[in-house]
Amino acid sequence: MVMSTSKGTVVLAYSGGLDTSCILLWLIEQGYIVIAYMANIGQEDDFETAREKALKIGASKVVIDDLRVQFVKDFIWSAVSAGLVYESRYLLGTSLARPCISQGLVKVAREERAQFISHGATGKGNDQVRFELSCYALWPQVKVLAPWRTEHFTERFQGRQDLIQYAASHGVPVPVTLEKPWSMDANLMHISYESGVLEDPAELAPDGIFQMTVDPKNAPDKPCKLQINFEHGIPVSIKNLTEVGPVNTDPLKMFILLNELGGKHGVGRIDIVENRFIGLKSRGVYETPGGTILHAAHTDLETFCLDREVLRVKTFLRDKMADYVYNGFWFSPECEFVRESIALSQRHVTGWVQVQLYKGSVQVLARHSPIALYNQSLVSMDQQGDFQPEDATGFINIHAIRLREYQRFKMHLEGGQIR
Amino acid sequence: MVMSTSKGTVVLAYSGGLDTSCILLWLIEQGYIVIAYMANIGQEDDFETAREKALKIGASKVVIDDLRVQFVKDFIWSAVSAGLVYESRYLLGTSLARPCISQGLVKVAREERAQFISHGATGKGNDQVRFELSCYALWPQVKVLAPWRTEHFTERFQGRQDLIQYAASHGVPVPVTLEKPWSMDANLMHISYESGVLEDPAELAPDGIFQMTVDPKNAPDKPCKLQINFEHGIPVSIKNLTEVGPVNTDPLKMFILLNELGGKHGVGRIDIVENRFIGLKSRGVYETPGGTILHAAHTDLETFCLDREVLRVKTFLRDKMADYVYNGFWFSPECEFVRESIALSQRHVTGWVQVQLYKGSVQVLARHSPIALYNQSLVSMDQQGDFQPEDATGFINIHAIRLREYQRFKMHLEGGQIR
Amino acid sequence: MVMSTSKGTVVLAYSGGLDTSCILLWLIEQGYIVIAYMANIGQEDDFETAREKALKIGASKVVIDDLRVQFVKDFIWSAVSAGLVYESRYLLGTSLARPCISQGLVKVAREERAQFISHGATGKGNDQVRFELSCYALWPQVKVLAPWRTEHFTERFQGRQDLIQYAASHGVPVPVTLEKPWSMDANLMHISYESGVLEDPAELAPDGIFQMTVDPKNAPDKPCKLQINFEHGIPVSIKNLTEVGPVNTDPLKMFILLNELGGKHGVGRIDIVENRFIGLKSRGVYETPGGTILHAAHTDLETFCLDREVLRVKTFLRDKMADYVYNGFWFSPECEFVRESIALSQRHVTGWVQVQLYKGSVQVLARHSPIALYNQSLVSMDQQGDFQPEDATGFINIHAIRLREYQRFKMHLEGGQIR
Amino acid sequence: MVMSTSKGTVVLAYSGGLDTSCILLWLIEQGYIVIAYMANIGQEDDFETAREKALKIGASKVVIDDLRVQFVKDFIWSAVSAGLVYESRYLLGTSLARPCISQGLVKVAREERAQFISHGATGKGNDQVRFELSCYALWPQVKVLAPWRTEHFTERFQGRQDLIQYAASHGVPVPVTLEKPWSMDANLMHISYESGVLEDPAELAPDGIFQMTVDPKNAPDKPCKLQINFEHGIPVSIKNLTEVGPVNTDPLKMFILLNELGGKHGVGRIDIVENRFIGLKSRGVYETPGGTILHAAHTDLETFCLDREVLRVKTFLRDKMADYVYNGFWFSPECEFVRESIALSQRHVTGWVQVQLYKGSVQVLARHSPIALYNQSLVSMDQQGDFQPEDATGFINIHAIRLREYQRFKMHLEGGQIR
Repeated sequence: MVMSTSKGTVVLAYSGGLDTSCILLWLIEQGYIVIAYMANIGQEDDFETAREKALKIGASKVVIDDLRVQFVKDFIWSAVSAGLVYESRYLLGTSLARPCISQGLVKVAREERAQFISHGATGKGNDQVRFELSCYALWPQVKVLAPWRTEHFTERFQGRQDLIQYAASHGVPVPVTLEKPWSMDANLMHISYESGVLEDPAELAPDGIFQMTVDPKNAPDKPCKLQINFEHGIPVSIKNLTEVGPVNTDPLKMFILLNELGGKHGVGRIDIVENRFIGLKSRGVYETPGGTILHAAHTDLETFCLDREVLRVKTFLRDKMADYVYNGFWFSPECEFVRESIALSQRHVTGWVQVQLYKGSVQVLARHSPIALYNQSLVSMDQQGDFQPEDATGFINIHAIRLREYQRFKMHLEGGQIR
Repeated sequence: MVMSTSKGTVVLAYSGGLDTSCILLWLIEQGYIVIAYMANIGQEDDFETAREKALKIGASKVVIDDLRVQFVKDFIWSAVSAGLVYESRYLLGTSLARPCISQGLVKVAREERAQFISHGATGKGNDQVRFELSCYALWPQVKVLAPWRTEHFTERFQGRQDLIQYAASHGVPVPVTLEKPWSMDANLMHISYESGVLEDPAELAPDGIFQMTVDPKNAPDKPCKLQINFEHGIPVSIKNLTEVGPVNTDPLKMFILLNELGGKHGVGRIDIVENRFIGLKSRGVYETPGGTILHAAHTDLETFCLDREVLRVKTFLRDKMADYVYNGFWFSPECEFVRESIALSQRHVTGWVQVQLYKGSVQVLARHSPIALYNQSLVSMDQQGDFQPEDATGFINIHAIRLREYQRFKMHLEGGQIR
Repeated sequence: MVMSTSKGTVVLAYSGGLDTSCILLWLIEQGYIVIAYMANIGQEDDFETAREKALKIGASKVVIDDLRVQFVKDFIWSAVSAGLVYESRYLLGTSLARPCISQGLVKVAREERAQFISHGATGKGNDQVRFELSCYALWPQVKVLAPWRTEHFTERFQGRQDLIQYAASHGVPVPVTLEKPWSMDANLMHISYESGVLEDPAELAPDGIFQMTVDPKNAPDKPCKLQINFEHGIPVSIKNLTEVGPVNTDPLKMFILLNELGGKHGVGRIDIVENRFIGLKSRGVYETPGGTILHAAHTDLETFCLDREVLRVKTFLRDKMADYVYNGFWFSPECEFVRESIALSQRHVTGWVQVQLYKGSVQVLARHSPIALYNQSLVSMDQQGDFQPEDATGFINIHAIRLREYQRFKMHLEGGQIR
Repeated sequence: MVMSTSKGTVVLAYSGGLDTSCILLWLIEQGYIVIAYMANIGQEDDFETAREKALKIGASKVVIDDLRVQFVKDFIWSAVSAGLVYESRYLLGTSLARPCISQGLVKVAREERAQFISHGATGKGNDQVRFELSCYALWPQVKVLAPWRTEHFTERFQGRQDLIQYAASHGVPVPVTLEKPWSMDANLMHISYESGVLEDPAELAPDGIFQMTVDPKNAPDKPCKLQINFEHGIPVSIKNLTEVGPVNTDPLKMFILLNELGGKHGVGRIDIVENRFIGLKSRGVYETPGGTILHAAHTDLETFCLDREVLRVKTFLRDKMADYVYNGFWFSPECEFVRESIALSQRHVTGWVQVQLYKGSVQVLARHSPIALYNQSLVSMDQQGDFQPEDATGFINIHAIRLREYQRFKMHLEGGQIR
């Protein structure tokens, strides 16, 4: 119920950190009723401490929403089966989390009859776009409050020191440890690191920055072999071939296991400069242990199972979808269309892939599909089967027509003679 | 000079192995004058022994052609700057060598006034297509003799045993060692392994198959750091940051150094199933140490230097060119067009990349360009510069128009109401 | 039942003309039992006379198969809703007919337990490819007899005169009229003209070549207005707005009506040079009255109904599919995949389009959709609605970031200063 | 020279109409020194009357800039040789004019040491984006004043009546004629009509709306035949084959002639709904007589001259460039890159095309190129030449491999048996 004196109800994407704590306080100061919303998408947060903190600051309510299963099944699986990778390298860990969180935000906001959604994403980043486009797409009437783009707010809080002072003066606990000289964002799929000392792309990322993966130099000397089963492009079970254990089939548990094993073997670290949607380039350091393993395995099985020309079209759709997702358009007509089309392509991507994790790398070792187009007897050099080698002569000769004509044409242009 | 009783002169792509030795013999038997042509593209062959063998069999002449510099500068550099990778994984080592060899074959054939070119490529593979399309493109009038697609030949030689017997009965030395249960093809860029025991994609490749790279498990415990400089997308110097030494700038030496270092650290092994041009799927195992390092470094620098939208178009061209090259269309109008367009895109891809090699993986660590579009002060969270955060609001809102309309449209379709 | 002395049973795509009559005779001579198969796909053939002729020549059976409804519903509708057009101009009339006929051929061949399919398509054309790829795709075991690529046949019949003589000497009626100096192929969707005098692309096509359409100069002075309704991208009814009459909803009748009206108003003639699949360029003259009208109408409605970005992806798929269909790959995994994906895009392409036919041109006049994304109140200059003009400022400024950076970068490269 | 009391100097894109006259007045009121800039891009304006009006209102200077030759040579020719068409139908007449005018604006602004550029484009349209992105790209430091997105302005002027009153009260002459119930924009290439009564896409555009072209029903009964010569994709001469006259080779005169002839024969009218960059759909009615003729002729010659696969890549680049240009990114790195790549593709697009204009349509009749890839003797059915028909057998069989495998695979999936 909105009080008559209130400006309305805001659902704030709350992390418990300094920034969103100050935003929570500030929104209340501005006259809003604020519901703190915390999505559990697998980050290692202390949700209960954050809940108490939010309530203490003045949140009218705190919602802690465990979205992990949803994140794996609706977002990560979708990315894996599509083979999404942004600018040839980034597996979109943050990009996938944003629409998932936004879904939760909108759901709660509508249940709570709020009018506003707010977030602590900054004005130069991708996340503001991803949050807001997702919210607007899901709920066209929503109004978004983005303090970091609000002059009134940014003038007051020009640096971290201003935030600390503000928090302290309102009795909000402030971090006692020194802030790390970079920012990070964690979820089940990855941790990203950027800003601060990472902003100079010519400088090496600091040692010890990573949290999900060990340094490959400290990884076990013994490799780990896994078998991953897919059905219709979706992972359905994981078997550790190195250490005997149960076969995992629960999506969340499977993904956590892959993160653990990938992390243990130092798999999935990258250091890149990428193109943000808003037109800036930025340097990001990422670790995506489980996602990296699944991407390698799925790519292998897909190439094995799909017809060549279907693969070409699907690759085009994959690249489009990666851009959509990176840019925040998960809930767009184009992403919906492409997602459905890609799903059609995955009908026969069923089988297993064996991979080996070792000191930072993941190697595909073997694959099998009960229904693949791969025809061993056809390809075998020792068997003729249906294949007539002389057919290749005609195939080549016909393909050569254009090339020979073009050469004659060029000789003609150059006034030359061909013997 | 063609004798009146001869069917004409053939230039045969000769390796010194059993197959092409038998083909040489057979062609002579058929009444051709045969010139044996050996291209040195970096494979570890004993050219002089092969020369003697060919002469002994009856070759009218043996040409040993050192194409290594040409291979690096005209083909490998072109592939690196284009970022070529086939079906997301294969760096095209064999595909690049074929047009290079074909150029040599055609040059010699024309100098020698031959009418025919012959090769030992089989009828189910890609190489026959690459050789022949290249030859036809460069010299439309040439006639190609492909014994493995000639019924008269294939009926006579139905297996390796037939070849051995034929060779032995004509005094041609036959291999004394047991044939390996797979076939391989080596050049400066890579070694490929396929067929035989590799034909079952569910079976692991045998241990000890690789020749250019050590098993990552046997690689040094100490990583190796390199700095690679590019100008206009082309590698121009390599500096080993781990072990002090001279900076390499000679293309061939640079590439050999990268092969050595990559090989020592177990870099560049893949095991894939790929789609051949003729419509079969085949399993290939490849090791491409130097090429893998350069691909990682170039991809990094390019993303750093290119405008986002230029990168998108260039990526499309890259994927087209990879297919052209894989399919044998290096010397085609389309490949020429795309190569020139890609070269335009590389004008500003200048700078260095630091990479680390360690137990099978290559990691990009840092990069710098004197002329990159990356603007640290613009991207920095601590600096405002030209950037107005409130602009992002309009940017998002306008992009949201389509999405909100689409949602309204869907609600309307479902007859639903939006609060 | 195959006689012991026979080589087997052939189903021959028979037209009743000189070529296929001679082929029929020749196949019988070669020892085959031949079933003459005539597909009625809307061409103006005298099927009964052809039947008698075939039986007289010695066909063991004649099958006349009315595929018109199937051709419209499964092939033409599919092309219209996909918006297929080859090389920006050709509406694929022949290309669509070939897989339709092939389906019929295969069906009959399997019913009749034949082993072979034969056709009279020549060795330089597209149709041989389309027939055979379709047949192989539908029935991998079939064997195709292509006399015009069989040396034994082509040596015997080196020109039309040889065919006439052969027919006459076997009592087969030969055409008494002079052959037209070009070849044509007709079906419900179009008539194509090529070869002969048309082979010189610099020479005008002869007057009076066209059969489905009047010369625009002889078309009525009064335009004809039509309203075409689509559901999910498929035409569902046609209303003549100029002359009152019943609304047509039967697919075949609708298409025939459009052909009549388009033909009467001289709509749908083109004269082009196109790229054949086998690598030749050829000049073709086409008339496609109904198809041209539907293409214009569907394009209009689709742009009206589809989201911009969905349209972009769909356009890519359209161009891929046009190439697949032209090249004979209707029954391929890639065409199946793309067709299904395009169908997804057509879910909301529902509404009507009004077009005007007049002296050779078709003009779109107006369109309406009950469910279009077009929002008149949003676009109106007189209404503000949800739209905030100031948002456009941020939108532009953010999009300008890349461009301004690029300009600064170029100025920097040129060593220049910007005031 | 900026007066100390002034806010600075603005260069205003001035048309002489009501809107920009009021903006001129208002900017002066706001304290700016205003230079009125009028680009002559072929619209039928009374530049001298407008000049006097601007001076009378208080412009510090009026610049009338004849950009017509530049518009034709740098923009229209570029579009023609690229084959640009937006969403399959719109020839981009307005989109091409905007960067041309912006170039002039920036040139004058820098010469005059102005700090600001202003324009009268509205907040929902494409033109604001095109103007501003072009100006920012050419001159990153410029500041743009967009009154129609300035609250202070839009609150004051909420309708046409407010503008008339404002003008009248300041002695600015106001239009005495009734405003037409739509808006139009004219230049050498086209006139566009939108808004007002055109906003309902289901309503027919009013009779008599068009100004460059006659109604096809009133066009001459005698067709007009033209021959257009191209070199490297660029029109170089026009010959009227119907009425003897001099051959035109001057770019501006050629284009004006084509407009006259196209206009006389009613060529180039379209009525479409298009997708604006800002996410709205809008209905536009366009007449582009000369551009339509050139587009038809160039498309024909290009398909004739280009290799098939080069054409495919070029078509992709064409579609990208059309979007760039429509969206206002003419001066962007991506447009520059694509423009240069397309230019490479046009090297051999040289020859002539004959077209016929008749009652609203343009028909291509014939074409010739001294250097085309079209090889009449190769394509001829009566000549064998290099072509071996039996090669087509192998070509088809090899292409069939994938299709047959796929069918077997599907049969296997369905548990079926193939006879």
